[in-house]
Amino acid sequence: MSKFGMYVKFTTVEGKREELAAILMEAAASMDEVDGCEIYLVNYADTEPNAVWVTEVWRDAEAHRASLQAEGAAEMIGRARPLIAGVEQVKLATLGGKGA
Amino acid sequence: MSKFGMYVKFTTVEGKREELAAILMEAAASMDEVDGCEIYLVNYADTEPNAVWVTEVWRDAEAHRASLQAEGAAEMIGRARPLIAGVEQVKLATLGGKGA
Repeated sequence: MSKFGMYVKFTTVEGKREELAAILMEAAASMDEVDGCEIYLVNYADTEPNAVWVTEVWRDAEAHRASLQAEGAAEMIGRARPLIAGVEQVKLATLGGKGA
Repeated sequence: MSKFGMYVKFTTVEGKREELAAILMEAAASMDEVDGCEIYLVNYADTEPNAVWVTEVWRDAEAHRASLQAEGAAEMIGRARPLIAGVEQVKLATLGGKGA
């Protein structure tokens, strides 16, 4: 049974990458309290100076969906939104391996 | 201090996705013995029927490079190569978060 994964690429408003990454690291820190979140990693890409990538693995799509309704999520999304120029994502079925 | 991450997208020869995924799951199983490998996950993408994505996080680029020289790696790469039509990758500096 596969898990629900995502690579989410946030393109930031010029010069706002560090600020967005800090908010996403706050979100990552809160994930220990979130049911079904197995991996939530914040990354920069070597060749994309205004991008922040988030690597996510969840027990299933329902756990991911529920997390967006959780207390605190709306407040963080509200702070992040003005920093974000665009969002792209790759939705994955995570088969397994080392780490999740 | 960030870690070394990668998303690697393998596009397979038509109909060879499952066979490549099985070899990559073998590689994942061997990663417990590999110094510096923190995450090695095998994924399908929802909208790409001939793709297999691998999510990797390493202590640093050197640990990743050394793993490619390890015993067994060449043999697995040899079996995988005829199944692969193309490779793309996103190189990442993994700042942190939940799971690595």
